[in-house]
Amino acid sequence: MTRTLTILGATGSIGRSTAEVVLAHREELRVEAVVGGRDAEALAKVAIRLGARFAALADERGGPALKEALAGSGIGSGAGISAVTEAAERDADVVLAAISGTAGLRPTRAALRAGRRIALANKESLVCAGEAFMAEARRLGAEIMPVDSEHNALDQALAAGRIGDVEKVTITATGGPFRTWSRERIARASVAEASAHPVWSMGSKINIDSATLMNKGLELIEAHHLFGLGADRLDVLVHPEAIVHGLVQWTDGAVTAGLALPDMKVPIANALRHRERLAMALPRLDLASIGRLSFEEADETRFPCLALARAALRAGGAMPTVLNAANEIAVAAFMGGRIGFYAISEKVETVCSIFSGRNLTAPATIAEALAIDEEAREAARRLVPA
Amino acid sequence: MTRTLTILGATGSIGRSTAEVVLAHREELRVEAVVGGRDAEALAKVAIRLGARFAALADERGGPALKEALAGSGIGSGAGISAVTEAAERDADVVLAAISGTAGLRPTRAALRAGRRIALANKESLVCAGEAFMAEARRLGAEIMPVDSEHNALDQALAAGRIGDVEKVTITATGGPFRTWSRERIARASVAEASAHPVWSMGSKINIDSATLMNKGLELIEAHHLFGLGADRLDVLVHPEAIVHGLVQWTDGAVTAGLALPDMKVPIANALRHRERLAMALPRLDLASIGRLSFEEADETRFPCLALARAALRAGGAMPTVLNAANEIAVAAFMGGRIGFYAISEKVETVCSIFSGRNLTAPATIAEALAIDEEAREAARRLVPA
Repeated sequence: MTRTLTILGATGSIGRSTAEVVLAHREELRVEAVVGGRDAEALAKVAIRLGARFAALADERGGPALKEALAGSGIGSGAGISAVTEAAERDADVVLAAISGTAGLRPTRAALRAGRRIALANKESLVCAGEAFMAEARRLGAEIMPVDSEHNALDQALAAGRIGDVEKVTITATGGPFRTWSRERIARASVAEASAHPVWSMGSKINIDSATLMNKGLELIEAHHLFGLGADRLDVLVHPEAIVHGLVQWTDGAVTAGLALPDMKVPIANALRHRERLAMALPRLDLASIGRLSFEEADETRFPCLALARAALRAGGAMPTVLNAANEIAVAAFMGGRIGFYAISEKVETVCSIFSGRNLTAPATIAEALAIDEEAREAARRLVPA
Repeated sequence: MTRTLTILGATGSIGRSTAEVVLAHREELRVEAVVGGRDAEALAKVAIRLGARFAALADERGGPALKEALAGSGIGSGAGISAVTEAAERDADVVLAAISGTAGLRPTRAALRAGRRIALANKESLVCAGEAFMAEARRLGAEIMPVDSEHNALDQALAAGRIGDVEKVTITATGGPFRTWSRERIARASVAEASAHPVWSMGSKINIDSATLMNKGLELIEAHHLFGLGADRLDVLVHPEAIVHGLVQWTDGAVTAGLALPDMKVPIANALRHRERLAMALPRLDLASIGRLSFEEADETRFPCLALARAALRAGGAMPTVLNAANEIAVAAFMGGRIGFYAISEKVETVCSIFSGRNLTAPATIAEALAIDEEAREAARRLVPA
């Protein structure tokens, strides 16, 4: 049975992997719409390649270029927020939400409100506006399938029982490029050194988050919302081989885990399944040839961002939104060579403490989340050299 | 809500671990009946300790001793096959079937026929009479919960999807005491050396099966019946730390796994769950403190019993019954110092080839299974020195 799919963020890294999954399943998946950010040509190309019916570019100015690139293809197109919203709301069985950053909030919510099943790769929907997003999903009875390798693995490992019988859920981290470095050496790390991820190839901002372990902190916040688990039941474990992505400790002593070779097509295909899984012709996990898997504690002294994210999760309210916004600005400043590596966590900590006295409640709407996000970014900007 | 439990094989290793699980859950589990083999005093002790209502000893001659040991306790008792059957059939929510060997076949089937949910630890019900046993379970709609750590782990890992989406199921083996030994050294191994299991403490016959890897071969046969998977979808992986007990490879590239510290109380508690898991105050798996997990291929050259078991599974029909019977006799001869270590697999192979020409169909009843079992034992006995 053919299922229809809309891809929000079709020209990014997740979008490209999703395209490969779709091309391997032309019989099972038909693409309804694709959404891109600024690159009209790349979007037109993927729309044609996937046989989409509609393509929408977020950047209004790219509308004419998109139209021209699609001329004769029979694919409809539009540009700007209303076109993106139209794409997100079009009739589809599942919407893969992979626009990165806060720009993904409104299109993802539009798809959710239109009653679509969401394969969720946009972290901000959970990190900045998790309460609002999940409340809406519950109200609509919408299914959210996590696309992150860690949460997707946990989703599968959690199938072994009831959430009430979960004692602890653990997300693994490769440990990033500085796993074995001393604090002194990390303090002097260059942007290039921080960008070299040992296993996954990702966008550059995410690579820095992987070096600080902030990405794992944000993933704990995501897990909290996705699975309804409190901070005391969420943990991180360093696992350099990136084979075991998530573990569930049950109250009876048993543990279930989700594993896979590190290839985003695996969790994407899994998140797009419908009763049957999508068969993927990918290399299979061969533990005998890998030989060993290693595990170690995450070191919050060398990686203070992880501790900050945990603290924000425990504090609740708007603190995760503030943490995420401050981190965006601090990481950008580090990537611009304007602050050092450990200044990232220092700036984030300072912004969090500025806001902590206000005891802001969790944003109840996306507009509220974006307002707090902007306010926290502004506070962070004042702390870093221009 | 209190659930009632009957323990077949209450004085054995699994029975003792089950008693510990029960004693930790007096509110949730009430013991209806306990069954033992020959040791009247041990059975009376466990019956009193667990507050059972009825105790049955398989050995008829022990009846008076059992009665005397239970005098004044208010616990009913009986001895002989009819008493064991009565115990198995008594009203209980779940029957833990842990009588070892072919002696466990009829009591386990009696519980099954009485409509009980079975927590299954008796290997022979599946290895010798798998088709008959599972056909009966299906006909009655009876639930079979595996108690073996490997199958219990798989049962949990399989919850992540539909059996049709399973590409391969893998059972792990510690590799036994001879994992790193050369074939030449193994050939000269003593009974004491073969009995030293690196992780689990088990009965002596099972220890030898663990040294030959026949136990893993038998577990593949069990997995075939429990999960309805063919020989080509079942595999063994050597994993000395015995933390990962079973893995499921799904068609989309994802893998789920069941893990636990090697303690039989974990799978027993899991098999006794009912909606909610039974909370167990046991040490938790701490992968960071374990540090590493290692994996290697199982070597069928040094461990030919594994290849023989796979061949019997592929051949189907009565071959698993024949294999198991021949193995029992050969292992007993090895333990008695009458044959060498590699003669175990040689004798099993010879008996299997004697029977293979007859193309016997799978035993349709337990009586048929026992007849083939006895015939194969007789053939094996003729091959070993008395």
